[in-house]
Amino acid sequence: MTEDLDALAKDLDREYVFHSWSAQAGLDLPVIAGGSGAVVWDHAGNRMLDFSSQLVNVNIGHQHPAVVAAIREQADELATIGPATANLARGRAAQRILDKAPDGFAKVFFTNGGADAIENAIRMARLHTGRDTVLSTYRSYHGNTGAAIVATGDWRRMPNQFARGHVHFFGPFLYRTEFWATTPEEESERALQHLERVIQSEGPSAIAALLLESIPGTAGIMLPPPGYLAGVRALADKYGIVLILDEVMAGFGRTGRWFAFQGYDVVPDLITFAKGVNSGYVPVGGVIISPEISATFDDRVFPGGLTYSGHPLAAASIIAAIDAMESEGIVDNARRVGEDAIGPGLAALAEKHPLIGEVRGEGVFWALDLVTDRESREPVGADVIGRLKKELTSRGLLPFAAENRIHVVPPCVVTDGEVQEAMSIYDEALTRVEGDLA
Amino acid sequence: MTEDLDALAKDLDREYVFHSWSAQAGLDLPVIAGGSGAVVWDHAGNRMLDFSSQLVNVNIGHQHPAVVAAIREQADELATIGPATANLARGRAAQRILDKAPDGFAKVFFTNGGADAIENAIRMARLHTGRDTVLSTYRSYHGNTGAAIVATGDWRRMPNQFARGHVHFFGPFLYRTEFWATTPEEESERALQHLERVIQSEGPSAIAALLLESIPGTAGIMLPPPGYLAGVRALADKYGIVLILDEVMAGFGRTGRWFAFQGYDVVPDLITFAKGVNSGYVPVGGVIISPEISATFDDRVFPGGLTYSGHPLAAASIIAAIDAMESEGIVDNARRVGEDAIGPGLAALAEKHPLIGEVRGEGVFWALDLVTDRESREPVGADVIGRLKKELTSRGLLPFAAENRIHVVPPCVVTDGEVQEAMSIYDEALTRVEGDLA
Ligand SMILES: Cc1ncc(COP(=O)(O)O)c(C=O)c1O
Ligand SMILES: Cc1ncc(COP(=O)(O)O)c(C=O)c1O
Repeated sequence: MTEDLDALAKDLDREYVFHSWSAQAGLDLPVIAGGSGAVVWDHAGNRMLDFSSQLVNVNIGHQHPAVVAAIREQADELATIGPATANLARGRAAQRILDKAPDGFAKVFFTNGGADAIENAIRMARLHTGRDTVLSTYRSYHGNTGAAIVATGDWRRMPNQFARGHVHFFGPFLYRTEFWATTPEEESERALQHLERVIQSEGPSAIAALLLESIPGTAGIMLPPPGYLAGVRALADKYGIVLILDEVMAGFGRTGRWFAFQGYDVVPDLITFAKGVNSGYVPVGGVIISPEISATFDDRVFPGGLTYSGHPLAAASIIAAIDAMESEGIVDNARRVGEDAIGPGLAALAEKHPLIGEVRGEGVFWALDLVTDRESREPVGADVIGRLKKELTSRGLLPFAAENRIHVVPPCVVTDGEVQEAMSIYDEALTRVEGDLA
Repeated sequence: MTEDLDALAKDLDREYVFHSWSAQAGLDLPVIAGGSGAVVWDHAGNRMLDFSSQLVNVNIGHQHPAVVAAIREQADELATIGPATANLARGRAAQRILDKAPDGFAKVFFTNGGADAIENAIRMARLHTGRDTVLSTYRSYHGNTGAAIVATGDWRRMPNQFARGHVHFFGPFLYRTEFWATTPEEESERALQHLERVIQSEGPSAIAALLLESIPGTAGIMLPPPGYLAGVRALADKYGIVLILDEVMAGFGRTGRWFAFQGYDVVPDLITFAKGVNSGYVPVGGVIISPEISATFDDRVFPGGLTYSGHPLAAASIIAAIDAMESEGIVDNARRVGEDAIGPGLAALAEKHPLIGEVRGEGVFWALDLVTDRESREPVGADVIGRLKKELTSRGLLPFAAENRIHVVPPCVVTDGEVQEAMSIYDEALTRVEGDLA
């Protein structure tokens, strides 16, 4: 009976559901029926360790009881209400978010997810400055809608270039430096010099916004080198450009801090968020707005909006998620488990496995950059990643793979025991794939 | 205590929440704490008739017990899961939606709301045809993200024109004809001739999609004249253009049919939906895809996607909403109440009130087009609409106002008694405002 449900879920999915970022034929996706913490299962009860946090969003873990309870209560009270109303859950959610942001942020604009958070942050920056151009990095992902997908640097932009006003530059990434640098300090300095030259060459008075992921996520979890983000802030100030930091993936606990940029001596003008803010229990995202930019729209109409802005079910889940993360020390756990278990565990794997070119990360936000050869740093191909995914999945671990990398991104609530279990699985899978390749 | 909650909700809202489509200073929005059917109330229990359905989305009415129960159950089981999985609720929701669509549609792609449904429909049309240009009407609204806002025809496009490839044309609207027409048949014929001339002048081989609201909603609820939509379908076929009908506002019961276009002898290639599909209880939208367009992406990667595509909480609410609308005859009620109560009620108001230039609509989807003078058909100004909103609100009716119009758009479950109550309120408010103007 329960296995019938798994078969039924697969059948319905194949027959009726059109999937993101995929060719549709021959998709064979795992059935997920339930979960708890860092674990999910199908209808037959087959258990998997979720070291993907799905799309790196389930920061608080699956089925946190306080967030589930908050959704149930709000559903009983008022599931939906339009944006042109005042609603207690919405106001409290905004207050909670501003509590976690650095001092001085003024207001929160709610959207449905990450892409439309970016869309609206770009809109605010353009109208605030009266300028058009948006600078963002080649190694980035900002979402799939009109402007967000063209702000995106990766391959997903290429078939979708219908928005104008976007220019891309290279961010710092010492392991695959674009600047012939040999130290983190040199990478930072040169990346800033490159950025300033792009700003000057595009014309500073045309540039509305500098948009960066505080730590590029899908693009490879590249921690910014010393001084880089502070240097970007200084350039933004020098040229009167709005600094947007995209914290959709890096924010709300993933790095072991509420916001990733809080480790880097920088305060942006606009912060975009989604995912971790409520772990995706209800679709939501948004923009945290500086007083200056908020004031621009005190007497001038903000020309953006959406039917579900400030949705009460989303708001209730945000309140509960932030409160539980606070009271249960979940952000601290992410930091600690990164330092004590994941970091050392991945370092040990790198010692042993020549496929691993570099290990990067902090908190529960790590990447294994896989190479055919440590000298050349040549990325492995899709075949190697495909095999590795299969070996990991068959051993009961849901992996997150991107290009030549495996990202190690469990929920912030992951335990040391679960990390040990995962490390054994990564070890076995790597051994197996290396054996096959030899 | 309950009044304190109303004051608190207002304070938090003013202090921390940034609102859609508004100047932020001096907003004074009603507090909504709960609701049932066509009624909402604040914390103190002050009751309002909701003749807006919020943003014309709460088709099933507020707090339908079956939809609330489904959200609670799914939250208990699995609140969130990534799109690259198979999930029973998601598959069943897609199946339900395809059940209601005309025969032959193949798959459903889920998004978070209306705007990103349009974004992805446009993406599919462009990649399917290998062409760029998207034609849409001046009197339209399609959402606030990059491409959707430029597809939009109304004023909200103007500060946001950063996407290329969009061209606008005039749709049929006899009351304010762009074609010097005097009968519905003439309006239809001339509007089609105009559209064909635009297609020819833009170059048919450059045009990917024709995007239309089946019945333009926010733009004024203009029912298409005889033969217009069928004529548009014929033009799309003649020139190999994908026909996208936007059913975000008109779909799922609002007109007394599951889809508005089902009254007009036309079948599109792509249908965009949101709002009524689950009455907005959880943010969701999507695209219903023809077999031909779906097949384009069998072996070719579809380059679009989002973290919350096919969200299980949204899926569960879709299943429950469609099932309840079916078993409780809610779509039929919308049709019946439109014919028996709203239509005649508004006609009687129009007899009495010279401010009303035209009454248009069907089901629970009506507009009062207000004019300074019936001869000139000069639209009333923002001051008149502002006063009318105040008179309606103070009498306990939440109105929907757009430009020079009041839209009469209650939930599909509205009763004849509630319609009578609302008609008295519209009557009193119109009398009052007409008195003030005289
Ligand atoms: C940094 C970043 N920004 C924006 C997005 C887009 O978010 P969504 O998928 O909710 O639109 C993502 C999604 O992965 C992201 O990682
Ligand atoms: C016809 C139509 N399309 C698209 C949209 C955009 O939907 P959303 O606000 O969910 O993005 C709307 C919203 O009112 C609409 O009426």
